[in-house]
Amino acid sequence: MSTPYQAKAYSASSKTSPLVASSIPRRQPTDRDVRIEILYCGVCHSDLHYARDEWHDTMPTVYPCVPGHEIVGRVVSVGSAVTKYKAGDTVGVGCLVDSDHTCPNCQDGLEQYCPNMVLTYGSPDSHGTAPVTYGGYSDSIVVDEHFVVRIPENLDLAAAAPLLCAGITTYSPLRHWKVGKGKKVGIVGLGGLGHMGVKFAHAFGAHTVLFTTSPGKTEDAKRLGADEVVISKNPDEMSKHAGSFDFILDCVAAQHDINAYIQLLKRDGNITMVGAPEKPLPVGVFGLIFGRRSFSGSAIGGLAETQEMLDFCGEHNITSDVEVIPIQKINEAYDRMTKSDVKYRFTIDMASLKGE
Amino acid sequence: MSTPYQAKAYSASSKTSPLVASSIPRRQPTDRDVRIEILYCGVCHSDLHYARDEWHDTMPTVYPCVPGHEIVGRVVSVGSAVTKYKAGDTVGVGCLVDSDHTCPNCQDGLEQYCPNMVLTYGSPDSHGTAPVTYGGYSDSIVVDEHFVVRIPENLDLAAAAPLLCAGITTYSPLRHWKVGKGKKVGIVGLGGLGHMGVKFAHAFGAHTVLFTTSPGKTEDAKRLGADEVVISKNPDEMSKHAGSFDFILDCVAAQHDINAYIQLLKRDGNITMVGAPEKPLPVGVFGLIFGRRSFSGSAIGGLAETQEMLDFCGEHNITSDVEVIPIQKINEAYDRMTKSDVKYRFTIDMASLKGE
Repeated sequence: MSTPYQAKAYSASSKTSPLVASSIPRRQPTDRDVRIEILYCGVCHSDLHYARDEWHDTMPTVYPCVPGHEIVGRVVSVGSAVTKYKAGDTVGVGCLVDSDHTCPNCQDGLEQYCPNMVLTYGSPDSHGTAPVTYGGYSDSIVVDEHFVVRIPENLDLAAAAPLLCAGITTYSPLRHWKVGKGKKVGIVGLGGLGHMGVKFAHAFGAHTVLFTTSPGKTEDAKRLGADEVVISKNPDEMSKHAGSFDFILDCVAAQHDINAYIQLLKRDGNITMVGAPEKPLPVGVFGLIFGRRSFSGSAIGGLAETQEMLDFCGEHNITSDVEVIPIQKINEAYDRMTKSDVKYRFTIDMASLKGE
Repeated sequence: MSTPYQAKAYSASSKTSPLVASSIPRRQPTDRDVRIEILYCGVCHSDLHYARDEWHDTMPTVYPCVPGHEIVGRVVSVGSAVTKYKAGDTVGVGCLVDSDHTCPNCQDGLEQYCPNMVLTYGSPDSHGTAPVTYGGYSDSIVVDEHFVVRIPENLDLAAAAPLLCAGITTYSPLRHWKVGKGKKVGIVGLGGLGHMGVKFAHAFGAHTVLFTTSPGKTEDAKRLGADEVVISKNPDEMSKHAGSFDFILDCVAAQHDINAYIQLLKRDGNITMVGAPEKPLPVGVFGLIFGRRSFSGSAIGGLAETQEMLDFCGEHNITSDVEVIPIQKINEAYDRMTKSDVKYRFTIDMASLKGE
């Protein structure tokens, strides 16, 4: 193994420390690797959970930690065996940087369910460059080409970055459950995930209904593509939609009453969670039995589907609504995220890291 | 409307009264009706819940009540417009005696999800013969031919009766979720429903695993068709099966930890409840997200599928394991059911009602 090079990054050294400028090791590209200069990195809620060790029980954070898995950048160099990319290409990296390539999930192109997947940050680093993988709050990254995707040239790159996690996380279940023309589809919550869910459901031709607790979000939801907005705190408004939805995508990570949504599904309807509340949600079984309804989860998407999603976004000019920040504002951005004070995703302009 | 005739029945007059011999009105057959002499009636756990008004909040019991929806009998006479049956035919009636025939569920042959379905007992009687419909603990019943099914002649009639509810309730989800050869399938609980689930999963060619809390049920489960038996109280035994099931049919109506089973599903695996615990079950969302798993419910089956199930049972000589009782033992049978002291279903021999 050749000596790693040093990259600039923003890292946290403990769960109570702010993220600060630092230097991290990156491996020299192997034959199959692509070295990428990072231009933008979206700020996902997972980044904050990870930096603050809020997932301690399932995935304890190893410090120093470098979050970031909504990466857009430019290829700097490629290994000798790389076939898909060349220097100068605009590419992206999402939540995964490796998997075992041999399990049934990998063979089906669903690397996100591989038991040996390597997350972009916080997974043991199989190359041994560092104790764990370091994410995209950095000026560069080195990734196996299989886990690199192409970003359509017509997209605004800052706004495209969140497609790598928020985009694919909502696109994949909407496709899996065959959302399209003639279907009535609900999106619960208008945040980073939910606003992408509304854009995709609308683009797929479904009758799209946004559920929110905030009446103030109605206009914006319609601008983003919602045909209707339902204030979920209002039982009368909710009951008008009983038994009428083919599919509901639930993007809320806070505790909430899932049964109120199950009642809105048609026979054989499905509600899929992409937000992950910490504590178990109480599910009334009668609501599932009467109507053969189902309650599911979905995690991001495989690499092939991520590319498909990006191509779809290129064709339909879909990106995230972002607020671009310099990396020096990341700690402030985290605080604002905890108050849902962002429309609808922060993206870091990594040019700001050059001066550090 | 012509004057109803009087039928013999066993009914309860309050939630604390025993079931006793009584006389009930039945309508004279209309053009589309079949009048059936009841030979056997299975005893479902629902009968007990209903007689004791234990579903008061969702479906308060109207007294006097006559339970029973696993009916097998002989056609006595048919209305002038009846085409499928004639006097002397061996037929069955399950949980439904009417529906609206026009809703999307009815049009899809899934009458059990019709919002206007009429249950065999306890639903408002649209013919006005009595305040509510009266079930099969009786010497006869009059039913629209659409809700009458044919019982294969080779089956033992006492043992065939529970197919009308316990049978179709387990058959339908196993078919819906495409259980068959090459699939690994779990059945949770070895009672009236579970023992039919084991028989069907085995007959469909699946690798069938029975989950039970009682080590004493192992031998019997294997006799019924289980390839493996897992003692669900033993976490080590459970964890050996992590991520390996295509489908699990959960037949337990008591509160239990559903997450322990969700962990056993493969990617895209499903667990379907046919037992209905009274209180909501806490569901950990991470278990659904990692593996795109789903948690569903299923209610009995439509009429076409009930006939398909009976024909399948005729071809494969499948019936329920029953303990035949005279109707005079029904109250004792209820007490034994609350202790799960039956292998695996009581069936009332309705000849015993003649002397009353």
